[in-house]
Amino acid sequence: MIHKRGPKVVRMTKTPDSVVRSYIDEHEAQFLADLADWLRIPSVSADPERAGEVRRSAEWLAAKLRATGFPVVEVWETDGLPAVFAEWPSGDAGAPTALVYGHHDVQPAAKADGWDTEPFEPTRVGGRLYARGAADDKGQVFFHTLGLRAHLAATGRTAPAVNLKLLIEGEEESGSPNFGALIRREAERLAADLVFVSDTGMWNETTPTVCTGMRGKLDCQIDLFGPASDIHSGSFGGAVPNPATSAAELAAALHDEDRRVAVPGFYDGVVELTERERELFAKLPFDEQRWLATAKSQAAQGEAGYSTLERIWARPTAEVNGVWGGYTGPGSKTIVPAEAHLKLSFRLVAGQDPERTERAIEAWVAERLPAGIRHTVRFGSVTRPCLTPLDHPALQSTVRAMGKAFGQEVLFTREGGSGPAADLQDVLGAPVLFLGISVPSDGWHSVNEKIELDLLRKGVEAAAHLWGDLAESYRP
Amino acid sequence: MIHKRGPKVVRMTKTPDSVVRSYIDEHEAQFLADLADWLRIPSVSADPERAGEVRRSAEWLAAKLRATGFPVVEVWETDGLPAVFAEWPSGDAGAPTALVYGHHDVQPAAKADGWDTEPFEPTRVGGRLYARGAADDKGQVFFHTLGLRAHLAATGRTAPAVNLKLLIEGEEESGSPNFGALIRREAERLAADLVFVSDTGMWNETTPTVCTGMRGKLDCQIDLFGPASDIHSGSFGGAVPNPATSAAELAAALHDEDRRVAVPGFYDGVVELTERERELFAKLPFDEQRWLATAKSQAAQGEAGYSTLERIWARPTAEVNGVWGGYTGPGSKTIVPAEAHLKLSFRLVAGQDPERTERAIEAWVAERLPAGIRHTVRFGSVTRPCLTPLDHPALQSTVRAMGKAFGQEVLFTREGGSGPAADLQDVLGAPVLFLGISVPSDGWHSVNEKIELDLLRKGVEAAAHLWGDLAESYRP
Repeated sequence: MIHKRGPKVVRMTKTPDSVVRSYIDEHEAQFLADLADWLRIPSVSADPERAGEVRRSAEWLAAKLRATGFPVVEVWETDGLPAVFAEWPSGDAGAPTALVYGHHDVQPAAKADGWDTEPFEPTRVGGRLYARGAADDKGQVFFHTLGLRAHLAATGRTAPAVNLKLLIEGEEESGSPNFGALIRREAERLAADLVFVSDTGMWNETTPTVCTGMRGKLDCQIDLFGPASDIHSGSFGGAVPNPATSAAELAAALHDEDRRVAVPGFYDGVVELTERERELFAKLPFDEQRWLATAKSQAAQGEAGYSTLERIWARPTAEVNGVWGGYTGPGSKTIVPAEAHLKLSFRLVAGQDPERTERAIEAWVAERLPAGIRHTVRFGSVTRPCLTPLDHPALQSTVRAMGKAFGQEVLFTREGGSGPAADLQDVLGAPVLFLGISVPSDGWHSVNEKIELDLLRKGVEAAAHLWGDLAESYRP
Repeated sequence: MIHKRGPKVVRMTKTPDSVVRSYIDEHEAQFLADLADWLRIPSVSADPERAGEVRRSAEWLAAKLRATGFPVVEVWETDGLPAVFAEWPSGDAGAPTALVYGHHDVQPAAKADGWDTEPFEPTRVGGRLYARGAADDKGQVFFHTLGLRAHLAATGRTAPAVNLKLLIEGEEESGSPNFGALIRREAERLAADLVFVSDTGMWNETTPTVCTGMRGKLDCQIDLFGPASDIHSGSFGGAVPNPATSAAELAAALHDEDRRVAVPGFYDGVVELTERERELFAKLPFDEQRWLATAKSQAAQGEAGYSTLERIWARPTAEVNGVWGGYTGPGSKTIVPAEAHLKLSFRLVAGQDPERTERAIEAWVAERLPAGIRHTVRFGSVTRPCLTPLDHPALQSTVRAMGKAFGQEVLFTREGGSGPAADLQDVLGAPVLFLGISVPSDGWHSVNEKIELDLLRKGVEAAAHLWGDLAESYRP
């Protein structure tokens, strides 16, 4: 009797990492086809005529999340456009709860704006996928779906290692007017130990980075009133205070000679950069001339003692966004104007208290104005800063997940802007982390928005690695 | 034979002064009726539909001047609306030549603006004559006609004691756009030793004054350019220069802590007030609260070491007439704006050279702007300052003529504004004097413009006294 041997099988050791890769390999084509379907929906939140498309986008995503396996998927109504909420409990006692934030609405786009392709007909050119929303933010939301399935495949789990929640809003590109109310309303269901924002990016195509914080923001309008109406500068000029001069004097006094913000108390509580952060920032391949081209500016200028990156990421600033008063038509009109106005905004960093800062600004304005100039200061909505220290275990997990995906050292950035994600930090009392693989060349809010397909793949991998690492490393 | 005696005639000694008065008494009713006729012509230079009325006003005045006795009366065409020129040689060898300046056009007016009477239907209420142009400037031009006749009656002359010229323009209320070209074209025929401007006024109803000068003016627009387009203040703010901040810094730097103009070289050559002038200014009954009400302002503010009157009359100033840049709509827009703009005007006093001042401003702007902010400075038209010293014999004549008319001490003012009269000074090389009896309550450019009839009478008298005194006291 001859024993027949079956075909020789070379069985490689299946590490979780290799499973992640092979799982993604296997499903990538379908993943990209699905993403393209989603990108075809022109979910432009700023266009009232496309409110139905934003709703269709929410429904499409909800269906996809159900297909991904989320047991709870809901389209949440707001006073504006709908958000999508999904939840998949871990089942493990003591597992941390992570909330992923992103948005499914997109900026307006039309081929006539100068696109090389139809913005709502996703087009693959080489290793890039061109479409409105490819990077901001559908692509970066979507990598979580395949990432999560790869995580399950690699760990053999039937539910994620963390309690996973997703909140994908539909009005981010319109300034998130209803987001604060939504998360306050749903705070209990959104309760999380950690917030992961997938709506940012990394340094560039070859430099994986993790963002550690965003600046906050407050803005105000200062209205200054002098003469009851415009008066003749020949008859009265030089003998009464001029509100346009006062506006200028205020705006000029915002900064001292070192271009530090000169409002007393402004820097109270500011969390200073650590030496380690400065060293890591300095490792980023920064080309100031290239950066200036991005800033469409001719020269760098800012707070003495800090690099350009430190200035925009880690230092609070004051900016004149608008100024107006008096005669602005052709020729001349020799008046002392009755009014002048300033729009100022302030970027805040961790440790600054926006309400205290507002009081400091009010006091500074009142103290500086001369007799005869009346004024009002009106503040707009506040966005708080957020910052996660380098040694935070969830940040370390994120860095490891990115490091596994990219196979190289992960550096750090911060975000100079301010986003609704900080609301989540405030309402949920949870630190905010950032997981994003978009790059500056992706053309957010511009023509020819795209995503780099190899980076999108890294995003899927990082998402696949993250949850297991987090469950092991982080205890709420 | 009985000699019948004729009726007893009490013959008072007829001094020239009493002849002036009795002549005016006799002709005042006709004079006022004639003025009313002229005031009925709505010679609004700003209204293209009333160009014909401005022409009719010129023709009316020309006819009246012929009737007054001027041997030469011409309507002078310009590229805009016509002026009236008249000339009456003295016949005396060595007599000085005086040119009277005024204007026959008026500001727009309609009863619907809030007038109590029809603005072009002169209405006498008590001792006031209400009509558009009553004080600015038809009344003050017209007092010269009766004044001149009274001068001839009182001196028994058939021609004035001075070579008298009149130039009454038709576009003063529209900014005298063609006046400079006109007087350059006609400089030979306008040649004069002295210019008398009858288009100003005096301190108030009970304080006769003579104006000794007007400030000059130059204006400029400064355009500042930063980023090639508005950029995001979160991504770039605090790291590149902001043109709105630069505009504010320039405007704020215009004045030092003493509110002196801080442009280096600005005060070069300034003719300082004499102690005598300061003493005389201080004798004027000045009520700062009332002045502030006129200025529609809450507080006085200006160059340290000078009174309010000194500041507006005798000191050069810098004023921000307009400023704009960045976002000026509702709410906030967090940008670093691409551009910002300033409209500045500078009042100049005697001794300042406008062209040198322009160079000083240009250098100051260029020197102060940071790297990365491009700029342009564009200057508008220049008006030179004029000033006649207190001891100038023609000014002394003017003061005596006013003193005779009013029977009280004559004080001095200056004019803070700037007028086309200064062009006459420059083109003709003649000092400018001012003979006016309008008062601040006359409502120039406003509703219910009027002239006080007793002051108008004093104007006639002053004009009647002036030419004889001048011929005696002033030698070219």
